[in-house]
Amino acid sequence: MHTVLQEIELTFRYPVHFTAGVFDLSNPLLRDVIAASGDLPARIVFVVDRGVVRAHRGLTSVIQRYCSQYPETMMLAGRVLVVPGGEKAKNHPGHVKDVQRAINNGGLCRHSYVAAVGGGAVLDVAGYAAATAHRGIRLIRIPTTVLAQDDSGVGVKNSVNAFGKKNYIGTFAPPFAVINDSQFLLTLSDRDWRSGLSEAVKAALIKDASFFADLERHASRLSGRDLTAMEETVRRCATLHCAHIASSGDPFELGSSRPLDFGHWAAHKLEQLTNFRLRHGEAVAIGIALDSTYSLLSGSLPEADWWRIIRLLQELGLAVYAPELRLHLHAPEHPRCVLRGLTEFREHLGGRLTIMLLRAIGKPYEEHEIDAGTMIRSIDILKQFSRRPELPEYPVDREKEHIHAKSERVAG
Amino acid sequence: MHTVLQEIELTFRYPVHFTAGVFDLSNPLLRDVIAASGDLPARIVFVVDRGVVRAHRGLTSVIQRYCSQYPETMMLAGRVLVVPGGEKAKNHPGHVKDVQRAINNGGLCRHSYVAAVGGGAVLDVAGYAAATAHRGIRLIRIPTTVLAQDDSGVGVKNSVNAFGKKNYIGTFAPPFAVINDSQFLLTLSDRDWRSGLSEAVKAALIKDASFFADLERHASRLSGRDLTAMEETVRRCATLHCAHIASSGDPFELGSSRPLDFGHWAAHKLEQLTNFRLRHGEAVAIGIALDSTYSLLSGSLPEADWWRIIRLLQELGLAVYAPELRLHLHAPEHPRCVLRGLTEFREHLGGRLTIMLLRAIGKPYEEHEIDAGTMIRSIDILKQFSRRPELPEYPVDREKEHIHAKSERVAG
Repeated sequence: MHTVLQEIELTFRYPVHFTAGVFDLSNPLLRDVIAASGDLPARIVFVVDRGVVRAHRGLTSVIQRYCSQYPETMMLAGRVLVVPGGEKAKNHPGHVKDVQRAINNGGLCRHSYVAAVGGGAVLDVAGYAAATAHRGIRLIRIPTTVLAQDDSGVGVKNSVNAFGKKNYIGTFAPPFAVINDSQFLLTLSDRDWRSGLSEAVKAALIKDASFFADLERHASRLSGRDLTAMEETVRRCATLHCAHIASSGDPFELGSSRPLDFGHWAAHKLEQLTNFRLRHGEAVAIGIALDSTYSLLSGSLPEADWWRIIRLLQELGLAVYAPELRLHLHAPEHPRCVLRGLTEFREHLGGRLTIMLLRAIGKPYEEHEIDAGTMIRSIDILKQFSRRPELPEYPVDREKEHIHAKSERVAG
Repeated sequence: MHTVLQEIELTFRYPVHFTAGVFDLSNPLLRDVIAASGDLPARIVFVVDRGVVRAHRGLTSVIQRYCSQYPETMMLAGRVLVVPGGEKAKNHPGHVKDVQRAINNGGLCRHSYVAAVGGGAVLDVAGYAAATAHRGIRLIRIPTTVLAQDDSGVGVKNSVNAFGKKNYIGTFAPPFAVINDSQFLLTLSDRDWRSGLSEAVKAALIKDASFFADLERHASRLSGRDLTAMEETVRRCATLHCAHIASSGDPFELGSSRPLDFGHWAAHKLEQLTNFRLRHGEAVAIGIALDSTYSLLSGSLPEADWWRIIRLLQELGLAVYAPELRLHLHAPEHPRCVLRGLTEFREHLGGRLTIMLLRAIGKPYEEHEIDAGTMIRSIDILKQFSRRPELPEYPVDREKEHIHAKSERVAG
């Protein structure tokens, strides 16, 4: 017997830029990001969210014009690839293959670039394709939604769905650079504008009580689509997210703790239970409300803090309840019971079940045992908030088949 | 404009164990590897090379028995999955999917295990599937060939082929542990026994002149299938390989240099040109001979050193020439010309062309310009060695169609 103990150290560095009008001919940021790395002119493939192209007529021409302005720095390798956005994009392996094919046809190497422009799903699909082609093409993320700008787009993960499970296949792969362009937020639907704010509430709850207080102070400006307030919120949330990844000691999640995912075990399950009728951010708001209420009922979170959380979510226009929370509650391991999300969350991450709960706003702690009865009572409490006029109307008939058919129709 | 500069540090550690009889009931190594990490009993999926199962009748039962001996440590999650071995396994995405499906059906989490038993291709397929399911299941590699034990199996890469290109899709993903079991080497064909030695010659040439001298001293024992000599060679080569990865400063190959791939630009291309009639190790031997000869003709490598290299390869039973080296030499960018391999090598790695050449045995240097005429003269010189009786007979008719049809038949 003989053993070699191998130890490998790696350092990844990437900038997260905040700008406005990234493709304006007068904005040199994207050019500068590429020019800084040498090997010029660099080949670049653009992958753009179809929803963004629809909201910004002529965007593909604008991108082409931007690239052709800097022939010494970048060379557009092939046509701008437009892919469908939203969660559906992650369900079909063909989209990953399309991006990989564009990378191959464009003759890209590891020092070339894939620039992904879109919401979190498109960034995920393009990111997974880029991370695996040649074992890693440089990825420039240009997130276009609040959710992608303040959360997923600045992180180190990508994924697609498989075997009916969200994010089942993916890698940890830091991007080469992230460019958050606030101008893209102006064309978001109200739903997409609001739903990304739930990740800001989450980051504030587990990291920064003063950020939470500022969210309370600016809640009406935020829900009223004040861009300056939103820019500030996105910047603070993204910065907290980056700082957590860098300082957690476990950026590739080899251990069992996952504090950035407060409220997410129920959120992931709710997205699936609603056939993705709920946006990720909408599901996260409900997940935050649920785990905050569980924290209250377990005696760890003061009632005043709990009220502030529920009130802020509502002031931001985020629902705290969905009827799918009540499906099959008598059978916690039923595939369509939200409590099954605890098992799936543990299984996805590995090791012991570890759920983040709250002692106070800004003060999280880890819990390894969740009591089903207390969780069901938490759901009962949130149900009282299901009738506020600003919340979307959900079907009251909770027969499984009915909801299933309805949500499929909405999702389709 | 505002910028957050993100910096992420990671450390990966894994042991490379050398043992004999890993599945003997009296050998606790595999149990100990798993037991050391907690979260017990851990689920484990075995992926085994069909060629290994054929050479070791009853292996799947032996594995089942081994696992059932340690119920407190490991739990076999599903049947032992047998997949085809060899390069063909990497051409069909279905094999990756099969492993991912077994991981999903087995309810594996990130703290569970995939144990891959086989040659480099099976380790690559299972490794890619494990690296992407849940963004990374722990991988235990149990390489069964000389090549996998002394080279690819101890490294940090996995891959499959796509778009007609070898290793086009993959990730950098350090294993959880590697177990090199010398008993598997006893059942290798002579071809597989010998061909893995070319990576030992490579490692010696670029890292360790005294290892090269020892290979010369033991050449007849090695080609005569002396297991003790082979164990020593595998251990030294694997250790050099590990040390290089740990000390290179660029384990995930973000830069342009790739010293471990001496002789590999031509090797990868020759595998493709012969439709994988040549084993990777056989192609590497020719690639080493080619770049050594180029080093000689460029005036950097002394003739005495060059002779020692050619002689050692031949004494180890490794051919230094294949007729496919001469295809389309008048058209260096022809897809079936070996010189096109320079472009593909640069493209796969990215950045500037960087080829390792030799000043002496153990003394490499990097070259960025390769002269096609000198390379063609190098091929002419090697052709003189094509007629030694111990080398396989290749077709003398060099018409493209003929060779293509013949090699397809052999490979098919």
